[in-house]
Amino acid sequence: MFSSKTYLNRRMHLKRTLKTGLVLMPGNSESPMNYADNWYPFMQDSTFLYYTGINCVSDLWVLIDIDKDRDILFGDDATPEEMVWTGAAEPMVELAEKSGITMVRPLRELETYVTKRRQQGQKIHFLPPYRAALTLQLAELLGMRHSEIATSASVDLIKAVVAQREIKSDEELREIGKAVDTTVAMHTHAIKNSRPGRTELEIAGELQSIAIGAGGNIAFPIILTINGQYLHNHPTQNRLEKGDLVLCDCGAENTMGYTGDMTRTFPAGERFSDLQRNVYDIVLDAHNTAVSGLEPGVMFKDLHLLASTKLVEGLTQIGLMKGNADDAVAAGAHTLFFQCGLGHMMGLDIHDMENLGEQYVGYTPELTKSTEFGLQSLRLGKALQEGFVVTVEPGLYFNPFLIDAWRAEGRFDDFVNYDAVEKMKDFGGIRIEEDFAITASGSKLLGKALAKTPEAIEALKNS
Amino acid sequence: MFSSKTYLNRRMHLKRTLKTGLVLMPGNSESPMNYADNWYPFMQDSTFLYYTGINCVSDLWVLIDIDKDRDILFGDDATPEEMVWTGAAEPMVELAEKSGITMVRPLRELETYVTKRRQQGQKIHFLPPYRAALTLQLAELLGMRHSEIATSASVDLIKAVVAQREIKSDEELREIGKAVDTTVAMHTHAIKNSRPGRTELEIAGELQSIAIGAGGNIAFPIILTINGQYLHNHPTQNRLEKGDLVLCDCGAENTMGYTGDMTRTFPAGERFSDLQRNVYDIVLDAHNTAVSGLEPGVMFKDLHLLASTKLVEGLTQIGLMKGNADDAVAAGAHTLFFQCGLGHMMGLDIHDMENLGEQYVGYTPELTKSTEFGLQSLRLGKALQEGFVVTVEPGLYFNPFLIDAWRAEGRFDDFVNYDAVEKMKDFGGIRIEEDFAITASGSKLLGKALAKTPEAIEALKNS
Repeated sequence: MFSSKTYLNRRMHLKRTLKTGLVLMPGNSESPMNYADNWYPFMQDSTFLYYTGINCVSDLWVLIDIDKDRDILFGDDATPEEMVWTGAAEPMVELAEKSGITMVRPLRELETYVTKRRQQGQKIHFLPPYRAALTLQLAELLGMRHSEIATSASVDLIKAVVAQREIKSDEELREIGKAVDTTVAMHTHAIKNSRPGRTELEIAGELQSIAIGAGGNIAFPIILTINGQYLHNHPTQNRLEKGDLVLCDCGAENTMGYTGDMTRTFPAGERFSDLQRNVYDIVLDAHNTAVSGLEPGVMFKDLHLLASTKLVEGLTQIGLMKGNADDAVAAGAHTLFFQCGLGHMMGLDIHDMENLGEQYVGYTPELTKSTEFGLQSLRLGKALQEGFVVTVEPGLYFNPFLIDAWRAEGRFDDFVNYDAVEKMKDFGGIRIEEDFAITASGSKLLGKALAKTPEAIEALKNS
Repeated sequence: MFSSKTYLNRRMHLKRTLKTGLVLMPGNSESPMNYADNWYPFMQDSTFLYYTGINCVSDLWVLIDIDKDRDILFGDDATPEEMVWTGAAEPMVELAEKSGITMVRPLRELETYVTKRRQQGQKIHFLPPYRAALTLQLAELLGMRHSEIATSASVDLIKAVVAQREIKSDEELREIGKAVDTTVAMHTHAIKNSRPGRTELEIAGELQSIAIGAGGNIAFPIILTINGQYLHNHPTQNRLEKGDLVLCDCGAENTMGYTGDMTRTFPAGERFSDLQRNVYDIVLDAHNTAVSGLEPGVMFKDLHLLASTKLVEGLTQIGLMKGNADDAVAAGAHTLFFQCGLGHMMGLDIHDMENLGEQYVGYTPELTKSTEFGLQSLRLGKALQEGFVVTVEPGLYFNPFLIDAWRAEGRFDDFVNYDAVEKMKDFGGIRIEEDFAITASGSKLLGKALAKTPEAIEALKNS
């Protein structure tokens, strides 16, 4: 946890932006797996975490009453009965103190407080919930139908939270760096321990154990697959074979809830094949080009298109595409091989603040999110600012379903050499992803450097 | 998956029991962590799994229309767009076929079907939901308020499902055996790799990697702790020290959703201390006594009380308790050290069918669940039957908060030597847990045997 001053200042800043109203800030509750008391690992709500620092305790609410200039923590101390099951819990008063909160009330008083202030005509701000349990709680608390909750969320609050959370402080960057370091350790293990005969799940399990051992957990489901052509394919009992390419996209969340997110693609055997290396180099070139472009004021959407152009140029050189690269990208032909976005914001969430709406997080009133295939998956389009943390993750994915479907309809015939592409239907996919903080003059790689060129990866693998 | 005949027969049996009505059988949906699309590992609903065998696909419903003798799978095939992200998915028709279901309909037709049959006056059966998302879906589907859903669940359906699921078939016992074997591998790893200097979380992460590598996952949050005095204490960054007792309670869920659940307690260093060994032997004696009593017709509640008496006798021998053991147990004095139950049903859930209500699963109309401290945590009280699978897990827990509280109020002064107990406040806790199938004449240990005596544990640790 940072010092209480950090959280006090963050809430003060929020109050100054919103000027008036009552902000409801619920922490997450436990999430049941197969019955009420068998829980998934607890994950705190990131906005609650940002403004309070309280990570591992469920069922808390903070009310920020701007008009009375009061922050109140609503929560219940553990009963002796609960202490039989889980031991001593930190008293609410001490938890609150660490967040710089002086008022503590039992949960049963939450509804009374909110109802009273509503009846006094105070504006109520809350964020759109992403868990059904909270939708039900909010409906109860506010006397609304559950179907009204999502549309009643406060756009002012969304915008205020995004404006604060998108700029990472130095102390946040240090925490993100720690999460990325653990992520680097996971990838190092994956590269060194992926061998013919082992299963995807065996290796994925080992990566998760590294994240847990570091005191946190995985930040998102691990992608570790010999079928990297599918963007979010999950590990299975597939056994790696010599000649396979392994795509590993994973990240740790650290003890404070900050995340890392990286991808490496490497051979299951000792070396890349010539073809694998050629395609890898195309992705690496696009990656490096995009990274060189990171600086305040640059539109991330432009970097996405620049990287796409680099990919097309490379594919043209190896005979899979043809024609003018800029025209191909303008037409969207590159999306046969690069169906997603160049990257996204990262912080307390792996897609930072995605629950608040991508239009608010990644775009502006002047720049709305596209609905075109490809660009619709670009989560960040707007101009970069110092303090943003972003991923850069171009890739090439040879998806046989898409190739068959588009070839059948003759889509992008002018730009795609389908006969050559046909031979790539069992190639798989390659992605290279790293995390960067935007600095005053450019960008800074977060976490320790990890082997990225084919040569360095082969050297690490065989070390 | 078992053969389609298994699932067909299970549904046929259910129809025969219920005789009439429409059974709504929803599978689980994905469960969001910190935004809608960042999911916890998928866990299928166990009843859905029992009657369909479909484990790893979300957002499915099966309707069992008893009056029309029709089973219908409602679900949607993956769109080409989804296949960009996750690859080829098994078509609904093939999934259904494996379950012995011939009718498949898109999800959008679910509401029409249910509404029509409701309007025709058909009785609708559904189980009480344990996830808020399903409560919302059911409220929508049935035109009810969400607060009415839990109380509108079908008791007939609950009873019918319990009566079927509580008796495990031979093919089920083999699957449970596999899950227990993985659980044994986890414990073997824990015993051999717990050493002074390592953290609880490091070891817990390694255990989870074994469960994942075997193709499933952990069946419940791992308990691995030097604070075994708290029944469900979770791993932390505590470093093990020489002299610590480590309590590890963990279990794997296998690829088909069947579970294992075992506990071992062992020294962090090479050997138990004399005191640790003495207390261990008391728990082991209670464990063995209870196991010897497992057979059809025996009330599990009686075994719980028998084990409790054994614990009191042992504690009396080492000077922590006094007086007549039977009287002490009748008074509840043993609950100072054994605050929970002897065991529970196990199957597709780790506490099998706990979502259906413990009164229905573990008790009978003649034997209601106690509300007394201690017995209120006994999830299974009723008479055993051939085919039941149960855990046996007595323990002794020296909880300093409870000792202080009860000493202060002079509770059970006649049976507890508080001066001697005072010195045990930093002892920790010991639990020994294994899984048994009830056979015609007794019981059978599930899974491979694992070191259980202090000597065997020390030998395994130092092997």
